[in-house]
Amino acid sequence: MTKEDSRIERIKYAPYRERIITAEQAALLIHDQAVVGASGFTKAGDSKSVLPAFAQRAAKENVAITLITGASLGQTTDADLATNNALIRRMPFQADAVLRKTINSGQVKYIDQHLSETIEQLQEKHIPQVEIAIIEATYINEEGFIIPTTSIGNSAYFASVAKKIIIEVNTAIPLSIEGIHDNCVPKKQPRREIIPIHTVEDKIGESFIRLNPENVVGVVFSSIEDTPALLPEPDHKTSAISQHLLNFFEEEVKKGKLTYALLPLQAGIGKVANAVLTGFKHGPFENLTMYSEVLQDSTFDLIDAGKMTFASGSSITVTEECYNRLLENFDQYKDKLVLRPQNISNAPEVIRRLGIIAINTAIEFDIYGNVNSTHIGGNKMMNGIGGSGDFARNAYLSIFVTQAASKDNNVISHVLPMVSHVDHTEHDVDILVTDIGLADLRGLSPRERAEVIIENCAHPDYRDELRDYFDRAVKEVGGHTPHILEEAYKFHIRFKNTGSMKS
Amino acid sequence: MTKEDSRIERIKYAPYRERIITAEQAALLIHDQAVVGASGFTKAGDSKSVLPAFAQRAAKENVAITLITGASLGQTTDADLATNNALIRRMPFQADAVLRKTINSGQVKYIDQHLSETIEQLQEKHIPQVEIAIIEATYINEEGFIIPTTSIGNSAYFASVAKKIIIEVNTAIPLSIEGIHDNCVPKKQPRREIIPIHTVEDKIGESFIRLNPENVVGVVFSSIEDTPALLPEPDHKTSAISQHLLNFFEEEVKKGKLTYALLPLQAGIGKVANAVLTGFKHGPFENLTMYSEVLQDSTFDLIDAGKMTFASGSSITVTEECYNRLLENFDQYKDKLVLRPQNISNAPEVIRRLGIIAINTAIEFDIYGNVNSTHIGGNKMMNGIGGSGDFARNAYLSIFVTQAASKDNNVISHVLPMVSHVDHTEHDVDILVTDIGLADLRGLSPRERAEVIIENCAHPDYRDELRDYFDRAVKEVGGHTPHILEEAYKFHIRFKNTGSMKS
Repeated sequence: MTKEDSRIERIKYAPYRERIITAEQAALLIHDQAVVGASGFTKAGDSKSVLPAFAQRAAKENVAITLITGASLGQTTDADLATNNALIRRMPFQADAVLRKTINSGQVKYIDQHLSETIEQLQEKHIPQVEIAIIEATYINEEGFIIPTTSIGNSAYFASVAKKIIIEVNTAIPLSIEGIHDNCVPKKQPRREIIPIHTVEDKIGESFIRLNPENVVGVVFSSIEDTPALLPEPDHKTSAISQHLLNFFEEEVKKGKLTYALLPLQAGIGKVANAVLTGFKHGPFENLTMYSEVLQDSTFDLIDAGKMTFASGSSITVTEECYNRLLENFDQYKDKLVLRPQNISNAPEVIRRLGIIAINTAIEFDIYGNVNSTHIGGNKMMNGIGGSGDFARNAYLSIFVTQAASKDNNVISHVLPMVSHVDHTEHDVDILVTDIGLADLRGLSPRERAEVIIENCAHPDYRDELRDYFDRAVKEVGGHTPHILEEAYKFHIRFKNTGSMKS
Repeated sequence: MTKEDSRIERIKYAPYRERIITAEQAALLIHDQAVVGASGFTKAGDSKSVLPAFAQRAAKENVAITLITGASLGQTTDADLATNNALIRRMPFQADAVLRKTINSGQVKYIDQHLSETIEQLQEKHIPQVEIAIIEATYINEEGFIIPTTSIGNSAYFASVAKKIIIEVNTAIPLSIEGIHDNCVPKKQPRREIIPIHTVEDKIGESFIRLNPENVVGVVFSSIEDTPALLPEPDHKTSAISQHLLNFFEEEVKKGKLTYALLPLQAGIGKVANAVLTGFKHGPFENLTMYSEVLQDSTFDLIDAGKMTFASGSSITVTEECYNRLLENFDQYKDKLVLRPQNISNAPEVIRRLGIIAINTAIEFDIYGNVNSTHIGGNKMMNGIGGSGDFARNAYLSIFVTQAASKDNNVISHVLPMVSHVDHTEHDVDILVTDIGLADLRGLSPRERAEVIIENCAHPDYRDELRDYFDRAVKEVGGHTPHILEEAYKFHIRFKNTGSMKS
């Protein structure tokens, strides 16, 4: 079979073979001001040809779109779109340094959404409907339906509503991936149905994405692998955080609150979460499961180590090494994995029913347990809230982790009198962990929380000033949540003025 | 039948007739440091004899408890408990001026919880288990089970776990109330089941509260009506807010986003919500339904007017006039009402499935759409978050209302540069309404939100300064959510120093 033949073989629905076009031709099908829904979730399963081609077109022509994805994209796609003024609005998540700059300058209007809610808002007509869908496919089946690649995100919904659909068939993805996807599209309220998931393994949908074949305006081939995740080696801080958490879980088991199988795990992206999960490899924990958004290296390490029996997510975002290991042996993992649409992976209904242990990263938290996941200095967007709110609100245990202090000479404290932006309120946070220690906030009043947070989590360089703030706030101002509003942001302001939060 | 006979008739399970005791005797069964779970939700169906008797006991003796209820209590129970130092911890909600003072002084440790989550936290052993349950009953059936009164709250759960149960049979409640309750207790994760509610009318439980009759240590009689709700007459501000919202709903219908039946309504307690609901009486809206926590006068007015077909809640909290009308004609309302446990009335699963229009009151909101529902001046607790977070996060439409400015000469602005405490983040707020106007935030970036909030919702006396803050924040600081941290609380600080937020 020639290379051309094997490519064509991936289009099993004959009429589409007449609609094969280049990425550049596909980019011309996207009209100015269009609302585009594209596949892609934390760099996995994104449009690798058509969106980049549109970015190139925008370099020469005055065209711009509203771009809705699953989550962040790979390659330099978001950067190129932003640089070429090709984005009007962007939602629900991003993690690109260049795009971030244009968001913070006000050039790109960014709508930072709970990842479970984008489909809700589209369906409720709160935001403009998706006109054009761009979906990466492993192959197209006999009915013209899409077998997705390494993520699902919002793709099933986009394909169900878009009047124009462009499919990117990615021949770099082995056909053996088929079977791990569980696609479905919820009905609009008031005819919404129950999500009948009782265990992490339950499948409720179809392995393909349904669509109206008449809406498919072009099929493009690509053969580009997902942009690999970069996973820095654990350092002493991430190891310390991981150890505090593992000790905590052991204590909970000893108290009879959990078994060594724990409850299904969710872990945000990044090195801390990865270090915690990797820590499970050599402990007494077994028969672990995940009900998460992103499946990272640690998931597959735990499966390989026989510690994890099943993992549910919306994307597979791994390092190059892990990607190759996985794609070469997909059959080995297939009965232990499911990828779901993000309104299902992040559904409050399912999260609360299953009882998830949710571990997410904070940018900063305050002495009363409020968490900032998104903003630097109270004004600059970093990435977005992602799914952290979906999980934190509904989890059995809502855990946030961060380093106690950072930068040379620890000039930034991540434990503060008051966070400069609130993404998760005191009501939604159970456990806080830094490299210094762990604060168990369950059942505590705000004043009690302040005591354990300052004592257990703050970096020693900041502990005295935090304690002084709290003590004076209690004495001079009082109240349920004592705060001296004149000083609440003194750490942030000092950093801005002097380059250090230290007094 | 003598009065005594008719009272005894309310205990159909013979063994309990040997356990009839006085409220004072019951109060002696509550040990010092006990964790007590008591019925009562926004003044309805609360313990009217035993808890007050315990407060009296505490006036003479050094005894104190952790008190968990459904929500706020009636009479002066919370005040008396607080005054007599009888409370160690209090959760998940209160609305008493005297208790509030002891919370804000740090004397009583108050845990302000989402109303859907108290049972979650008990079941997960995050907080100490309920040892003693005190539940108001209309009567006790042949099996020794409780038919509740005007609220359910957390009663079914308390009765299922407490080793000692005290039942307060309230003969002021007509027996005809039987049939409106739908009690159930969720299983603990990971064996949690689906909540099979598809419409506001669906019943999934039993009309009585199950318990182990051996755990019933005393039955007390009372004959005290619920403390009536006080409902101030609508004023020009509440009328204006109501009118803005009614106009908005009409527009949504015209755009085809809603029908005149809207979607099930949830309304927080108080005069604004009541005014909005009352406004539906004379408009084009019909076949309305409610899926709410508290059923107030307006619910029954709409049912009487033929505008509302069904209402689901966790309590009936009405004025004296409405209470009498209702209790005298209960059979007339019975097929149009259901009372549910608050973990069901407020379940994210059901709220998201049904698609609720949630209308709650804000204390203040900021130019980016963050809402403070609980704190005055950033430190003092008012009542608590109640169910507003359960609904705001999961609703089809999340609406918050408040007056634009208040007090003589409008010295307080309720629209601020930055809220002094965040209960609902920008991610969870769709519509803001003041007497000045309505801001539709759906699909807007933070900078766009600031424009419409300042323009549509702020009081004219504060509009220029808010606009100046925003403009300078954009110019001098920038970012996704422009803020000048040095000035973010200048309105609050000015009020503290001068008694007015005006410059």
